[in-house]
Amino acid sequence: MADPVPGGGLRRLSLNVWTTKGWSLREAVAGCVAAGVPGIGLWRDKVTEVGLDAAARLVSDSGLTVTSLCRGGFFTGDPAHRAAAASDNRRAVDEAAALGTDVLVLVVGGLPSGSTDLAGARSQVAEGIAALAPYAAGHGVRLAVEPLHPMFCADRAVISTLGQALDLAEQVAAETGLPNVGVCIDTYHVWWDPEVLAQIDRAGPRIYAFQVCDFLVPIPADALLGRGHVGDGVIDIPMLARAVIGAGYDGLIEVEIFNQEVWDTPGEQTLRTVIDRHRRYLSAITD
Amino acid sequence: MADPVPGGGLRRLSLNVWTTKGWSLREAVAGCVAAGVPGIGLWRDKVTEVGLDAAARLVSDSGLTVTSLCRGGFFTGDPAHRAAAASDNRRAVDEAAALGTDVLVLVVGGLPSGSTDLAGARSQVAEGIAALAPYAAGHGVRLAVEPLHPMFCADRAVISTLGQALDLAEQVAAETGLPNVGVCIDTYHVWWDPEVLAQIDRAGPRIYAFQVCDFLVPIPADALLGRGHVGDGVIDIPMLARAVIGAGYDGLIEVEIFNQEVWDTPGEQTLRTVIDRHRRYLSAITD
Repeated sequence: MADPVPGGGLRRLSLNVWTTKGWSLREAVAGCVAAGVPGIGLWRDKVTEVGLDAAARLVSDSGLTVTSLCRGGFFTGDPAHRAAAASDNRRAVDEAAALGTDVLVLVVGGLPSGSTDLAGARSQVAEGIAALAPYAAGHGVRLAVEPLHPMFCADRAVISTLGQALDLAEQVAAETGLPNVGVCIDTYHVWWDPEVLAQIDRAGPRIYAFQVCDFLVPIPADALLGRGHVGDGVIDIPMLARAVIGAGYDGLIEVEIFNQEVWDTPGEQTLRTVIDRHRRYLSAITD
Repeated sequence: MADPVPGGGLRRLSLNVWTTKGWSLREAVAGCVAAGVPGIGLWRDKVTEVGLDAAARLVSDSGLTVTSLCRGGFFTGDPAHRAAAASDNRRAVDEAAALGTDVLVLVVGGLPSGSTDLAGARSQVAEGIAALAPYAAGHGVRLAVEPLHPMFCADRAVISTLGQALDLAEQVAAETGLPNVGVCIDTYHVWWDPEVLAQIDRAGPRIYAFQVCDFLVPIPADALLGRGHVGDGVIDIPMLARAVIGAGYDGLIEVEIFNQEVWDTPGEQTLRTVIDRHRRYLSAITD
């Protein structure tokens, strides 16, 4: 499975570990190395299974680039929840730094249970990020706010568009004087937005992470799992990738797929498909 | 079930016939009249069951205000589909006029099957509406573009935000010189939008219809059916109603709920809940 061509069109490919959910962190790292995939995106749960120190050594020894750590956030809720989240988010910053990535992805949180106060929840998010930014800066970590598709507004993220995430980043920068809040752009969440190209252009150096997967139709019973391999859905992913790269993003492209069928497929086969799709749709743009 | 208080807080309430899906058009009309609900929103399928002439007589004799006819649209697709849609949309205009409403709601259509060309689909929508507007104007009918929640972007409506719908309305107005393209605002589709209040304010006299229902969490397996009675979900509907009325909308508020549990409830009981919720959440704002 090693790549016969040096680079092989994979120079900017990163595998998010949730795409190969059945693999342990060790298997995912080994799979990437064997296949010539240069980057890996981590989730905290997979790191916890191994232990932070062992995980840090594992990825460091592998030579892989860690493109991001998912995830911090969940800033909304009652005071006790918010205090616990603040503390957990500082740990997430510590973990990102230990794992050798400077990008912590933030899923900001939805409406508190029983609440319809969207503006209030958004204020809590802004406060939470402003409080976290100095700690992150002290550890060399950048905070990548991920706008989530509006269907997750109530239960996961009250930040639904790239424009809104950038407004937030600018607001926090103005308050803290720090330059370390930006965005994670995931094609699945932003493709429908009539403003997406203008906002990608606006984002420029605030694009800290770029994740790709396709949007499948119909949406499955669990809407979280409606993500497909690049090319299997309705998104013009090459167009969005050209825009992101045109805006100056020079990092890797992480493939992050939540999909029960993909998860039921052996990791090695899934990674082959990821590589195949990257070569078919994205290598010409990125390499 | 007749309302004991004149008006009874129901002066601006309209029942969309799909909320009481188990009722025939005749039953829905009779139910509204008996309960003192002054308005009714129609769907073409319910009209077809009775026949257009009989339906027109029925609603005319009832004295109810017909707040809208759902729906025209579906402008996207191959040339044959688009020609058929254009013809069907002219029939929908005829039907609206015959039924005594000047508001035809448009669900614009999604991506053509197999396509990822969102910009192309949006152009087809603009062309389709521009072609329909003169015919509608000739029949005294206004076209209410309904932005749908972004989760329906691929399969139902490539117009996802109120701002985008207003841009479209202004574009068509500039092309045709006609003032008869506006919007239908449905709380279910727009509540999450960080721009919603600013865009409601911008919309002003272009608000042709206002539909309410709540957004339920979690989203059910069929995302279309995740609508609840006002007050049962996560939307601050009174806030949105205040904004719509503050923007100058002086029409009725239509309750349109797609929900299997609601549909499995007898129509009379559903209408009682609709009335109760209107009085509890909206009467003080509207009356």
